Amino acid sequence: MIRLGIIGYGNLGRGVELAASKADDMELVAVFTRRDPATVKLHTEGIPVLKIDEVADWKDKIDVMILCGGSATDLPTQTPEFAKMFNVVDSFDTHARIPEHFENVDRSAKDAGKVAVISCGWDPGLFSLARVYGNAILPDGNDYTFWGKGVSQGHSDACRRVEGVLDARQYTIPVQSALDAVRSGANPELTTRQKHTREVFVVAEEGADKAKIEETIKNMPNYFSDYDTTVHFITAEEMKANHSGLAHGGFVFRTGKTGWEGEHKHVIEYRLTLDSNPEFTTSVLVAVARAAYRMSAEGQKGCKTILDIPPAYLSALDGAELRKRLL
Amino acid sequence: MIRLGIIGYGNLGRGVELAASKADDMELVAVFTRRDPATVKLHTEGIPVLKIDEVADWKDKIDVMILCGGSATDLPTQTPEFAKMFNVVDSFDTHARIPEHFENVDRSAKDAGKVAVISCGWDPGLFSLARVYGNAILPDGNDYTFWGKGVSQGHSDACRRVEGVLDARQYTIPVQSALDAVRSGANPELTTRQKHTREVFVVAEEGADKAKIEETIKNMPNYFSDYDTTVHFITAEEMKANHSGLAHGGFVFRTGKTGWEGEHKHVIEYRLTLDSNPEFTTSVLVAVARAAYRMSAEGQKGCKTILDIPPAYLSALDGAELRKRLL
Repeated sequence: MIRLGIIGYGNLGRGVELAASKADDMELVAVFTRRDPATVKLHTEGIPVLKIDEVADWKDKIDVMILCGGSATDLPTQTPEFAKMFNVVDSFDTHARIPEHFENVDRSAKDAGKVAVISCGWDPGLFSLARVYGNAILPDGNDYTFWGKGVSQGHSDACRRVEGVLDARQYTIPVQSALDAVRSGANPELTTRQKHTREVFVVAEEGADKAKIEETIKNMPNYFSDYDTTVHFITAEEMKANHSGLAHGGFVFRTGKTGWEGEHKHVIEYRLTLDSNPEFTTSVLVAVARAAYRMSAEGQKGCKTILDIPPAYLSALDGAELRKRLL
Repeated sequence: MIRLGIIGYGNLGRGVELAASKADDMELVAVFTRRDPATVKLHTEGIPVLKIDEVADWKDKIDVMILCGGSATDLPTQTPEFAKMFNVVDSFDTHARIPEHFENVDRSAKDAGKVAVISCGWDPGLFSLARVYGNAILPDGNDYTFWGKGVSQGHSDACRRVEGVLDARQYTIPVQSALDAVRSGANPELTTRQKHTREVFVVAEEGADKAKIEETIKNMPNYFSDYDTTVHFITAEEMKANHSGLAHGGFVFRTGKTGWEGEHKHVIEYRLTLDSNPEFTTSVLVAVARAAYRMSAEGQKGCKTILDIPPAYLSALDGAELRKRLL
């Protein structure tokens, strides 16, 4: 059995607990939190919840630690820190900062002789795989990534900071005509506005200037000004009843040409439709933890991404079974 | 530069020549054939065409040999044979015989200290990857593979053997309602008949009994009796004008559930739409040849499949570039 630990028990931590419970070759042995452990109630009975300061005592009792903190402030320090003690897996998803995060984690993990796999989830993660395979196979081509329909936490937060807004949820929605154009192999050049629309649901303070809120949101630079945005005002009850879901998804396309005259078009499409973004993300993390365990057992060390992992390492089946049943 | 060789110059051999010409880090150095080399004209000038018996002389001049023979009779003997001299890549696609082929090739390649990657293309190949990743991430779920629209060589050949048939082409076509049901996450149980239809274009001999030909095809066991099949009679001219294309494609779905009560559905869809089946297949073979070269340079040996290859090894970009641009 591969012994897993969790650091951080929010949506991701709960998802890891769930995914680990479905894997016959893994067991969750401890959960670490910054909160008072007495206040944290796991879904599963009998698994200890401990203060994060106690983690060093578990150095030899955990094979892979799954880091379930956030990318903004937790993981940039946690992953390099805990890679000194454990094989670790994280879901760091700030694309622009991945090279820097990689370097920091690589140093710690190499020094400690551990394997640290960063940025595992669906984007980065499975979408990255689709891009890398697509580019390697169709070097003469174009990449398209669409996200949604799903909630963007960053955009929701930006709306909540607008004066007069009590609560907000922002959905990113791919534009159907853009998807159709890409899928046809037409290799369209698409502007930001042509690829996605944004839809915002706002609970406003009583007496707030709704016209002004709408205008402020729609013209917000970086977040909304390059998009067609629709703003809906709803009640707090409607927000709770209709906008608490965690569904998400998206599309990665690689379109390209072959032939001496480029006469043959090809379209590779990878699509995810997810009822629960955190539960799917953590399903990836747990499969990657299995791979991290195997790479560590082979004597590998340092920072890795899903691009460095032989696909078979993610599976509980052995090579012969995979070749027989899934190849 | 990675030096490639080709054995067999049919549709696949020509595709490898084309794909190699697009890769900046690879060069095609020789083509080997069973035919009289004087009768084989490459698209590219200046590359020697040699008799297959001369292949041993090229042992130290070729880094990876790409085997472009057929799965029925060529590859079962060629891949184990040439893996004694070269790192090799093949597109062996008889799923049921992969375990046996793997064992034969593994023995040769291990003895010779070479890397041999078998069954690289899109199915087996990219579709296998979609199945393995999907199964590892959503262990509680279902697999669906659909092929087409595209020509099945085996079914076309079977029709050609019917009395009174001069020529035939058989298209395998996925059923739209089945695709829609799978994509919805409904996890339908689908019979063979519900997943694909078959459409056959036949050029009949003059005076042949067309009703009998149609009935014979539609009731052919294994090939057609479990499907809804449409048979069209056309002229030899129509066959040539409208049915010479090599388009193909298909879909792999992994659908699954997460949640303590299985309350969250997820759908992973991988779709290929290909104008040229052989040119796309060989684009995969050439990317895999790059990986085979790297694995061999690391000291690996034996038989591998695409499931054993870190995705980054297929790309001409280095790890840092991949993390920056595609992760």
